[in-house]
Amino acid sequence: MQRIYFDNAATTSLDPQVLEAMMPYLTEKFGNPSSIYSYGRESRLAIETARKSVAKILNAHPAEIFFTSCGTESSNTAISAAVHDLGCTHIITSPLEHHATLHTVEHLHKRGDASLSYVNLLPNGHIDLEDLEHQLANTADKTLVTLMHANNEIGNLLDMHGVGELCKLYGAIFHSDTVQTVGHFPFDLRNTPVHFITGSAHKFHGPKGVGLLYINENVRISPYIHGGSQERNMRAGTENLYGVVGFAKALELATAGFEADSAYIKGLKIYMMEQLKKNLKGIAFNGDPLGRSLYTVLSVSFPKTEKSEMLLFNLDIHHICASGGSACTSGAEQGSHVIRAINHNPNQVTVRFSFCKHNTREEVDAVVGRLKELI
Amino acid sequence: MQRIYFDNAATTSLDPQVLEAMMPYLTEKFGNPSSIYSYGRESRLAIETARKSVAKILNAHPAEIFFTSCGTESSNTAISAAVHDLGCTHIITSPLEHHATLHTVEHLHKRGDASLSYVNLLPNGHIDLEDLEHQLANTADKTLVTLMHANNEIGNLLDMHGVGELCKLYGAIFHSDTVQTVGHFPFDLRNTPVHFITGSAHKFHGPKGVGLLYINENVRISPYIHGGSQERNMRAGTENLYGVVGFAKALELATAGFEADSAYIKGLKIYMMEQLKKNLKGIAFNGDPLGRSLYTVLSVSFPKTEKSEMLLFNLDIHHICASGGSACTSGAEQGSHVIRAINHNPNQVTVRFSFCKHNTREEVDAVVGRLKELI
Ligand SMILES: Cc1ncc(COP(=O)(O)O)c(C=O)c1O
Ligand SMILES: Cc1ncc(COP(=O)(O)O)c(C=O)c1O
Repeated sequence: MQRIYFDNAATTSLDPQVLEAMMPYLTEKFGNPSSIYSYGRESRLAIETARKSVAKILNAHPAEIFFTSCGTESSNTAISAAVHDLGCTHIITSPLEHHATLHTVEHLHKRGDASLSYVNLLPNGHIDLEDLEHQLANTADKTLVTLMHANNEIGNLLDMHGVGELCKLYGAIFHSDTVQTVGHFPFDLRNTPVHFITGSAHKFHGPKGVGLLYINENVRISPYIHGGSQERNMRAGTENLYGVVGFAKALELATAGFEADSAYIKGLKIYMMEQLKKNLKGIAFNGDPLGRSLYTVLSVSFPKTEKSEMLLFNLDIHHICASGGSACTSGAEQGSHVIRAINHNPNQVTVRFSFCKHNTREEVDAVVGRLKELI
Repeated sequence: MQRIYFDNAATTSLDPQVLEAMMPYLTEKFGNPSSIYSYGRESRLAIETARKSVAKILNAHPAEIFFTSCGTESSNTAISAAVHDLGCTHIITSPLEHHATLHTVEHLHKRGDASLSYVNLLPNGHIDLEDLEHQLANTADKTLVTLMHANNEIGNLLDMHGVGELCKLYGAIFHSDTVQTVGHFPFDLRNTPVHFITGSAHKFHGPKGVGLLYINENVRISPYIHGGSQERNMRAGTENLYGVVGFAKALELATAGFEADSAYIKGLKIYMMEQLKKNLKGIAFNGDPLGRSLYTVLSVSFPKTEKSEMLLFNLDIHHICASGGSACTSGAEQGSHVIRAINHNPNQVTVRFSFCKHNTREEVDAVVGRLKELI
């Protein structure tokens, strides 16, 4: 039986064109980008070309683009630097953040490096901007605001400009985990009031093991990983050469296809919502799926029954890939902290379906049919 | 003209067999190892199989093996954990360490997290074990000793057992940067008194972007990169799946070929020493090249002349890849901190030649011939 992969927010397939771009660097072009001979300089050139391309697409300066090993490392770097280098002694975040953010801020808090508060949420899971402003206005501490752009479980999109303007007003540093949106959203960083954003290539048909950290030119931080002078002294360690080349190629392809692909994928999401409502009783959608929401993610709650509690398991048996929470924690079986934070109904079972351009309406039909059968 | 690559300590070519092992994970097998469905579990299985294989080869427990993004990240993790989690308030290191170690300990020192001292060196660049013992005996602080196994510029090999036993005696934590020896040395970690060692796949014909951190089962640390529960909560971030698979495959191949390859490469190094002595005047070898020395590395100092100052540049023109210092700093043009620390002769120009099993005597002849011409 054919597998149906509806878990593209967890990771995506590597685009064959991306692999093709990586192949020379996986074979004959293996020189160390830091070596001074011409053979090393070819590798350096590949990295700098990738950096320029990424910068251009995001409308940033090449000097603001740094390659890391993953989105998680990027967020650790930004958050830790805001505290240790930029003097932030208070952090405002939300309970809906990815663990890459939550565990990092909790760690800094536990070490006594910063105090920590969580912004209120509106009933649809959006950030309460009034509460954010209230909190910013009522602290004398230099503050880091770290709020994700698109939530990886429910798809809610942050008003980045709104938050950024508030941060500007109150002199706060703003980091946004954009791992779900880099490659899925038309960024214009030169006109966005944000200090740090992050990305991860495997979320948009690029390779695993390579991430992005954008650092606004107006902030100066020290590296999180110390050592050699790679990445202009900002991230030590021999570069993941093919990863970096793959990152840029994947972002180029995602950008070229953005208009058509995003419309198509949004169509799938809406179609699935309609089909679910038509075919299943008592379901609910989490977040704001038809409002400010990323077109790739759909979070569905089903009434809890003996059958629905086994839902992911049974979907798996039928070769349907979907997830309960974020992939990083699904092994941990603790349920989703995001769903707990926005939905206090314990009598529901929640499944995240997340789409890419390779998915089809036929697959949606097959999954909805199967759900009907299983519930 | 054919390129001669004598810079294998900087990075090595990816073995086609390693790439072949990685290919399924670069194409159809892209599931997130943290996803609970069977498709994700296949990826998880690949990682755990890699971990077991690496553990077996190093004679360690699989639970002691962690995959990271590079050797540098591994050393940052170990050194920082020794200070922040294991209570070390003093660090002993050497001036010959790689910047991944030096810059990390300097950072911790600057932050006031630990005091720092450097062990004396013997004239041949080896660590003075008597001074190490003296320093350990004369501090009341809990101490981290961080000393590299093989120096990447001069090849000197540490007496790991000797250092480890001293650390044991004085209750110190011992980290060894083994980036130049993992894949080039028969480790037996269950019988080696060391708490942390590190590795990097691209140094032994594996992929760039993946590193190893061995953490002895008797020490418990927290992660350096916080987030999801990957690597048993020790290293967050979606795994570099193909990188991990490639790491294990490269180590398997290196281990299978070790006896024959190391004898062959050692032969090349000795042959090059002989030919250099025969054909060039006034040269000197740094370190202890015929004694406790890694068979892959040869550091040669040439009398400084107008011509020799241009040596690397001219070698490059003739498609010969060799380096002045470690690759990570060669871009920085500050010269080698290692050579400065062992050799106070400013009238010399130093070049590192480093070999792999693909190099030949004919290449050595060609390089020596070219050196004769250029100097
Ligand atoms: C001795 C030594 N330690 C650490 C490193 C760092 O390894 P990586 O660049 O893979 O992080 C290197 C090589 O660059 C090295 O030779
Ligand atoms: C919103 C969000 N942030 C951060 C991450 C972490 O990215 P990575 O696993 O590549 O480090 C993920 C995905 O895992 C994510 O969805």
